[in-house]
Amino acid sequence: MAMKPQDKNKNLQYCRIDEVEQLFVHGRTNWQNDRKELPLFWNNSGVEVCTDGTELWIRVEADYSVYEPWYAVEVNGALVSRSMLQPGENDICLFRGMSAGSVKRVFFYRELQPMGQDDNCYMIVKGLYCDGQFTDVPPYGHKIEFIGDSISSGEGTYGANDDMDWIPMYMSSSHNYINMISKKMNADVRIISQGGWGVYCSWDAVRKNNIPRIYDEICGIAHGKFNESLGTANAYDSSNWQADAVVINLGTNDGTGIAAYNGSGGEIGAMADEPLSISECEKSITAFLKKLRSYYPKAHLLWVYGMLGYNISANISKAIADYMTETGDDNVSYLTLPNTLKGEFGSRMHPGLKSHEKAAEMISDFLLSKLG
Amino acid sequence: MAMKPQDKNKNLQYCRIDEVEQLFVHGRTNWQNDRKELPLFWNNSGVEVCTDGTELWIRVEADYSVYEPWYAVEVNGALVSRSMLQPGENDICLFRGMSAGSVKRVFFYRELQPMGQDDNCYMIVKGLYCDGQFTDVPPYGHKIEFIGDSISSGEGTYGANDDMDWIPMYMSSSHNYINMISKKMNADVRIISQGGWGVYCSWDAVRKNNIPRIYDEICGIAHGKFNESLGTANAYDSSNWQADAVVINLGTNDGTGIAAYNGSGGEIGAMADEPLSISECEKSITAFLKKLRSYYPKAHLLWVYGMLGYNISANISKAIADYMTETGDDNVSYLTLPNTLKGEFGSRMHPGLKSHEKAAEMISDFLLSKLG
Amino acid sequence: MAMKPQDKNKNLQYCRIDEVEQLFVHGRTNWQNDRKELPLFWNNSGVEVCTDGTELWIRVEADYSVYEPWYAVEVNGALVSRSMLQPGENDICLFRGMSAGSVKRVFFYRELQPMGQDDNCYMIVKGLYCDGQFTDVPPYGHKIEFIGDSISSGEGTYGANDDMDWIPMYMSSSHNYINMISKKMNADVRIISQGGWGVYCSWDAVRKNNIPRIYDEICGIAHGKFNESLGTANAYDSSNWQADAVVINLGTNDGTGIAAYNGSGGEIGAMADEPLSISECEKSITAFLKKLRSYYPKAHLLWVYGMLGYNISANISKAIADYMTETGDDNVSYLTLPNTLKGEFGSRMHPGLKSHEKAAEMISDFLLSKLG
Amino acid sequence: MAMKPQDKNKNLQYCRIDEVEQLFVHGRTNWQNDRKELPLFWNNSGVEVCTDGTELWIRVEADYSVYEPWYAVEVNGALVSRSMLQPGENDICLFRGMSAGSVKRVFFYRELQPMGQDDNCYMIVKGLYCDGQFTDVPPYGHKIEFIGDSISSGEGTYGANDDMDWIPMYMSSSHNYINMISKKMNADVRIISQGGWGVYCSWDAVRKNNIPRIYDEICGIAHGKFNESLGTANAYDSSNWQADAVVINLGTNDGTGIAAYNGSGGEIGAMADEPLSISECEKSITAFLKKLRSYYPKAHLLWVYGMLGYNISANISKAIADYMTETGDDNVSYLTLPNTLKGEFGSRMHPGLKSHEKAAEMISDFLLSKLG
Repeated sequence: MAMKPQDKNKNLQYCRIDEVEQLFVHGRTNWQNDRKELPLFWNNSGVEVCTDGTELWIRVEADYSVYEPWYAVEVNGALVSRSMLQPGENDICLFRGMSAGSVKRVFFYRELQPMGQDDNCYMIVKGLYCDGQFTDVPPYGHKIEFIGDSISSGEGTYGANDDMDWIPMYMSSSHNYINMISKKMNADVRIISQGGWGVYCSWDAVRKNNIPRIYDEICGIAHGKFNESLGTANAYDSSNWQADAVVINLGTNDGTGIAAYNGSGGEIGAMADEPLSISECEKSITAFLKKLRSYYPKAHLLWVYGMLGYNISANISKAIADYMTETGDDNVSYLTLPNTLKGEFGSRMHPGLKSHEKAAEMISDFLLSKLG
Repeated sequence: MAMKPQDKNKNLQYCRIDEVEQLFVHGRTNWQNDRKELPLFWNNSGVEVCTDGTELWIRVEADYSVYEPWYAVEVNGALVSRSMLQPGENDICLFRGMSAGSVKRVFFYRELQPMGQDDNCYMIVKGLYCDGQFTDVPPYGHKIEFIGDSISSGEGTYGANDDMDWIPMYMSSSHNYINMISKKMNADVRIISQGGWGVYCSWDAVRKNNIPRIYDEICGIAHGKFNESLGTANAYDSSNWQADAVVINLGTNDGTGIAAYNGSGGEIGAMADEPLSISECEKSITAFLKKLRSYYPKAHLLWVYGMLGYNISANISKAIADYMTETGDDNVSYLTLPNTLKGEFGSRMHPGLKSHEKAAEMISDFLLSKLG
Repeated sequence: MAMKPQDKNKNLQYCRIDEVEQLFVHGRTNWQNDRKELPLFWNNSGVEVCTDGTELWIRVEADYSVYEPWYAVEVNGALVSRSMLQPGENDICLFRGMSAGSVKRVFFYRELQPMGQDDNCYMIVKGLYCDGQFTDVPPYGHKIEFIGDSISSGEGTYGANDDMDWIPMYMSSSHNYINMISKKMNADVRIISQGGWGVYCSWDAVRKNNIPRIYDEICGIAHGKFNESLGTANAYDSSNWQADAVVINLGTNDGTGIAAYNGSGGEIGAMADEPLSISECEKSITAFLKKLRSYYPKAHLLWVYGMLGYNISANISKAIADYMTETGDDNVSYLTLPNTLKGEFGSRMHPGLKSHEKAAEMISDFLLSKLG
Repeated sequence: MAMKPQDKNKNLQYCRIDEVEQLFVHGRTNWQNDRKELPLFWNNSGVEVCTDGTELWIRVEADYSVYEPWYAVEVNGALVSRSMLQPGENDICLFRGMSAGSVKRVFFYRELQPMGQDDNCYMIVKGLYCDGQFTDVPPYGHKIEFIGDSISSGEGTYGANDDMDWIPMYMSSSHNYINMISKKMNADVRIISQGGWGVYCSWDAVRKNNIPRIYDEICGIAHGKFNESLGTANAYDSSNWQADAVVINLGTNDGTGIAAYNGSGGEIGAMADEPLSISECEKSITAFLKKLRSYYPKAHLLWVYGMLGYNISANISKAIADYMTETGDDNVSYLTLPNTLKGEFGSRMHPGLKSHEKAAEMISDFLLSKLG
């Protein structure tokens, strides 16, 4: 398509994304210092701006081999658009025809988690077209990091109840509990999440598929030459984004994976790359808490679990108790979330909107009380 | 963008839309006999197909000067995407990466009502790219036509509560009560709707802005040379789509317009092009019922009213009673719908999701009982 | 039981009900001028007081042959107790052990409609025992009369879903839409209601079982020597209670009765005492509106219908339109209420709580807007 | 009142409660072997029968000095009546006028927890009057014991939002989460509960006010000569009622009491009878689990916590982990329940219906999955 944003509105001015001073960047990324373009690795990562213009576009470059990235757009906090990205450069209109003068707040973000199975999957924000001035994004009251699996990647939050395909279309951050918590708490949230993975092993009993292993890199899940050129493998530096709280929603896949390894999972168990045990899983939990503490000395560490059952809840409890005893650190909590009930499922037998809402209510209530 | 759908999937085959035998066309349009491309005039008009392929794209041509058309996509009955169209030809991926063999049902439709104020606003479906076979769309149980105003155009069903701009982004058929009724009743629905208009006059007291005046044409609201070349001004022929029921959701703007004319509306009343009176409005209601009966001899005619207040409810009642007395036709009903309560509004002080859900429940319950 | 209220609290003082100056009497009754004891004829009729005492009892005399009266108690607007009355004098504790000094507002009321089939069914309030002072009941903002059938008698608002016995236990005003409206609007409400009856005939096609016939008496349904000695047959005098609105929820039984008479009702039709026709029913509606207007010259007359289907809705509409044309009175409205959906039924295939809540929302919203 | 049940129905036959073979007794009591009358000590304790009669009464003796006992009645699983008991013998009609032949299932139960502050508070079931045959109560699928504090005593489940009096009227088992769970699981439930108490100390820092101390007696909270003559102080024998699960909802008062002792509670802390510490509280939790295990070798022990905040959640987790490590017993779980949110409170700043429903959903889902 040869059409350009300016074809319909001559007043639109293009700004490279690094030139937008008032830009608010969401998500863990490798930007700030060394790039002019902003790669979005994790779901819910994106850019937010305020402007008094009548029209706003964004330029985004994307590609994929298997799993296409999706994006969503919120205007003044309300979801208005959601779509697949196409390979190449996409000029996407975020709004148009709005009243000049009044300030609109716009958040453009990645819906899709990083896809470890598709080295060619990426999206990069390049610039904005606007016919107004940018103004500062109002400040957020909290910084919260969420670490999770398919639930935090929003698997099942879109799609018909019976649909079972594992595709980007059915993953989101627009409909997941983390986005809801962000609204309820006025919180700047970041997500580190990968479907199928655990704190110790994955649902299919693969030991190495655990979040702690890749946590120290900017985005240790996005591989391939191009992704690495974007800085995915760089060390994560938490110094300029100190979370007030870290919410870890892991354990569901560990339970499944260990059970599979122990024989109840049939052929899946055979995929195991190493011996697995629940006691090692407990140690992984304790170790992960220590690691998180090293990144965020003052953050409240909140482990949550239960949206898909409570298999290893006792082990999580115990591991947290061990962590507290070993370290003397009592700035850590554990919440069991309401399990997804009949009628509350979305697609892929995953939690649907109602279940995400319940989780969001319980977590935001807890954190608001804890963080004051 | 030079990218082509086939760049990533060599198996995709392009079919002109008129070549897809199993195509199910939604909405009142000027197709079938005389065109190879399918214009979509009204909101919720669109195309539906079933296929066992892994990937499906659609080619849509669009343009606008002021008000850009939006589209939405449902896969197996669930909303997955919603976006603005860009001027020119758009190749839009409806799904990809799904399991071969299983049948997916996909509905691509126009979100935006026809825009009388923008002669250059249009969208035309040209073809589909698929790597599978098309199969028949399962039959619908009912055919229902909805005639309405901003409520039926879904104004306010997207957007933040305080947002007041009158823009396509905040109108929809994806979130409106008609789409909900379609799901609840397995009904093939059509919408003839225009924001601000009434059965007799518009909200700003303009007599000629009434739906009956333009009802006899395919889409008497979409003007301009190009739209007319698409057949908008052609006479509507109901012979091959006989509705089981016609739901008329009009009256809200008539009440406002007549009140404005009578002096309570300040400057708005001054815009009136003709003297207005509530008794003439009643006659318009009666006359419109007669007109609808001429198109649909056997349809149940259901007038609904009240989602934004009950100002002229007594007049609607009376006009319907007059119609029944005059014609002896008792296949007509009247329902007052729940008014939108505090907390149930969407944007633009229009009914939000909760209000649309209540209306959908009440209307679908009524029609299921009436139509059997 | 020989126990007396004072046995446990020597400070309780007995006051004859006619001696409680601050007493607020609910419901249409034959009191005020000629009696020292207060009979409660209609459901939701009762007595309300405010007191700073720690304990409050009520003395109520009751009897019955077949259908026992029930009562309910609200403290500060919250339902706390509901029970059957026993034959003879009942000393019932309304609260005890509450903090002295703070004012409690207590409403004791009849749950059961008058029972035309049991001449010995009655309840009479005789006095109060209190250890504090009575203070004025805060003023209500509106006076509203409700006229209805089993729905307004709360049939089905208690009891298990499958229970079908027609017994007082399953009727109420504590759980019906009228009580909810009273709370939402701060309205003093009165109910004139009889299960099975209509505006023209009863569900079993008996012409004489219609509310207008008995409307002119205080309680034209409660028969027998004793009830008549309480003044049930006295003429109703509306001069000292002018309603702001009258809500008529009738029509459901008329539709059933006429259908039965016309042959669709099997043996029930045979019970008819006179020929029935829908056109005569329409005339009854018009005539009843005239009658109500004579009692309440300024009240808004609101007909509501639909909680158990919409059979004769068009006839009600027409009759109201006829009334308006004949009289020139336009202070009258019609609302169709949401039908009771699957899952919203209580016992006896009657509307349950959810259905009553929907009706209450719609009616109170309408009246608040109408009455200002 | 000299009236007798038989005055209105000559067919009623009185049976002493110990003569009703088909009687189902709810709650922990001192019956079965050594008494002809059945004392009801704990809330939700009561009697359940099935009968084909048309009428059923119960004879209950009660008394109190300060806190009067309340009862509730369910017919076919639906709450129909709730009232205060009067001192002396009460003949209470449970239903009348129902169809002969069909079986009604009736549950009469105590609403009020045992009142440690009122030695004269008691209620005793003496007999039933019925005009039909008794038949077996359908079997329950599970036996579950609940151990709790004010939440399990239903404080705040009745009464207006602002009401703060600590009175029996505002406590219940009819509206609390345990009753809901009983329905959702078809479970025979028992409650051992005392408002203000904890597993280790009470809300006002009194060490001896803890449930484990009184757990070994039938009802170690009901004191006084008469209560003791009913067997309250007898040793509890669990041999003929082996719970499938024990749910312990304790910790809220411990948290408050320890905080008060530690100085944040002002004068309350001064009431402490012994030094308090959170580590001793943890030991009490571990010890209580051991005690419960000794009574119920096979029951699943489920600790739940959080309906009024999460203060000592980490300590409960740790104590459970310690129990598991020490004993090797892994048939124990911990669930944090949703905190009561704004708008979900009942009276006395305690959880209201919505909060109880959420707890009931989460616990019943968990137990159904655990117990199969």
